Amino acid sequence: MPNSDNNKCRIIVDAMGGDFAPYNAVIGAVQAASENSDVELYLVGKSQEILNVLSYKKLSFNKNNIIHANEIIDMADQPVAALKAKPDSSIVVGTKLVSEKKADAFVSAGNTGAVMAAATLIIGRIPGIGRPTIGQEMPNAAGISILFDVGASVDSKPKHLLEYAVMGTIFTKEIHGILNPKVGILSVGEEESKGNDVSLAAAALIKKTNLNFVGNVEGRDILKGTVQVIVCDGFVGNIILKFGESVLDFLKFKFKEYADQGFFKKLKIGIVKNSMKEILKDFDYEEFGGLPLLGVNGIAIIGHGSSTPKAFKNMVFRAYEMYRKNLVSKIENAVKQYSHLT
Amino acid sequence: MPNSDNNKCRIIVDAMGGDFAPYNAVIGAVQAASENSDVELYLVGKSQEILNVLSYKKLSFNKNNIIHANEIIDMADQPVAALKAKPDSSIVVGTKLVSEKKADAFVSAGNTGAVMAAATLIIGRIPGIGRPTIGQEMPNAAGISILFDVGASVDSKPKHLLEYAVMGTIFTKEIHGILNPKVGILSVGEEESKGNDVSLAAAALIKKTNLNFVGNVEGRDILKGTVQVIVCDGFVGNIILKFGESVLDFLKFKFKEYADQGFFKKLKIGIVKNSMKEILKDFDYEEFGGLPLLGVNGIAIIGHGSSTPKAFKNMVFRAYEMYRKNLVSKIENAVKQYSHLT
Repeated sequence: MPNSDNNKCRIIVDAMGGDFAPYNAVIGAVQAASENSDVELYLVGKSQEILNVLSYKKLSFNKNNIIHANEIIDMADQPVAALKAKPDSSIVVGTKLVSEKKADAFVSAGNTGAVMAAATLIIGRIPGIGRPTIGQEMPNAAGISILFDVGASVDSKPKHLLEYAVMGTIFTKEIHGILNPKVGILSVGEEESKGNDVSLAAAALIKKTNLNFVGNVEGRDILKGTVQVIVCDGFVGNIILKFGESVLDFLKFKFKEYADQGFFKKLKIGIVKNSMKEILKDFDYEEFGGLPLLGVNGIAIIGHGSSTPKAFKNMVFRAYEMYRKNLVSKIENAVKQYSHLT
Repeated sequence: MPNSDNNKCRIIVDAMGGDFAPYNAVIGAVQAASENSDVELYLVGKSQEILNVLSYKKLSFNKNNIIHANEIIDMADQPVAALKAKPDSSIVVGTKLVSEKKADAFVSAGNTGAVMAAATLIIGRIPGIGRPTIGQEMPNAAGISILFDVGASVDSKPKHLLEYAVMGTIFTKEIHGILNPKVGILSVGEEESKGNDVSLAAAALIKKTNLNFVGNVEGRDILKGTVQVIVCDGFVGNIILKFGESVLDFLKFKFKEYADQGFFKKLKIGIVKNSMKEILKDFDYEEFGGLPLLGVNGIAIIGHGSSTPKAFKNMVFRAYEMYRKNLVSKIENAVKQYSHLT
């Protein structure tokens, strides 16, 4: 069981989360712990399976830091129902330890909805936050933009978009080192009059803050990098996220189709693929360290289902960074400042 | 002035619309008329400027088919205000002739908002249609999907999404020859329970029709081609449309950045660009013939600001196809069928 005998950052990794569980999660987590001695790492899940991976890969890991959890919430489970039906699942056990302050962070590549629900319901929200948000980094021509929200909730109210702007600004500043990140609301035109009911009301609210708010941005601004924090309802953000991911799959499909047309085309495609890989290396999700779930009263990182060991390692590092920078208390203080607006 | 002495399809092209007006519009329109003798083509705009292009390019065109309009609504004009402020603009004059049944179709690459407003307010809506919709063809792995709406309106109600589904189905069937196109609602998950308030209510409505409705589709399905008709609010569709367009610009930017790194990389990028051009030829907007504005009581086609002569030619051909297939009356009959649902 996690303890606070030392001043390390206590990070729990869900060993049972992701398409290659427990293999990738265990290898990546142990690697992270070995590279950062400020991290006290815990693995939660079926202990025998965790031990098997450790022994198979000859990894040295303190057995006392394995937290047994007998159940698994899988990808097909209904998030909220699963939390009740599987109280001994790695997701429920892990988030409970964070809520009891026995750990500082929870990292999982499991059922996204379930991790989100557990973080919100078990760890709980930061006082003053109506809705947590998931951010997605979008590398672009100018560096990086981060889209909030990409699916933590839909039908956001204007005050929720204000919260996303506040949390997104803190995350972008602390984790990406951008001092005064520009904030924009995703809309259908740059003009102040363009938007839907919610985006227009949210813009009026955010204008009253001292955030570096530039007003509306459009779909094309995401890859232009016009602003660093892009705020939108999770319905829109999630559709864009999935559309964006599919562009790379689509290009791969077209490359194959083209290569199949003949020898010289195949030759050319070899060069194209190679160059594209280098050109698009910024889009390698493994490097990012998962998607942060901001607004919960503890640190929670959500990983891609297909997370590699390297992706897990970077998720642990990101959790550590968020802990070290006191992101939770910074968010709590910042939202207090704007409570009179909503 | 247009007349109906013959049974030709009377198409008015806005000579003053687009970044290269009147040059590209005039050349493309005259070319279309010369290739299709069933089209009676009219050019609306500043007659002297139109005549200059005709003479400069030595194009033969019946001078009686030039309709003088002394004003121009430009890209910076506020759409609705401009219609009142500039009653003698090519957009107002052209759409008025369609509303008076003196012409069958209006084609313009001018201020999109103004064309949309003129079509809706001057030509008017088809009885039973609450909101017109703009469709955007998305070539994909399976052929084509068409997204409705990409920006005719925001904050659509469920019944408007039903209308988009009905109109989209007719357009896809008649213009793309897909007999029973699959219809999906863009949402945040495939499961029936996933969505926002409007998408869930719209799905419940569309389910009651005899359209080939498959339920929710996700962002990634756009390029997968899971369905042929994708229905969404114009706020979402417009953001996706602009994000999608920017992907190609972004790739070009990255290619350049990469090529600038050295001679061999420049060499490789030459091959990449070349292959990409071939691979992405389906995305050439010039081929599509503009975006159809469905739901207005006449044919209206909206072109890209940077439309080439070829793009204008294909816009005229598309207008002709929509006329020949009686799209307006087919939509009117189809929406009647579902009036009891809303």
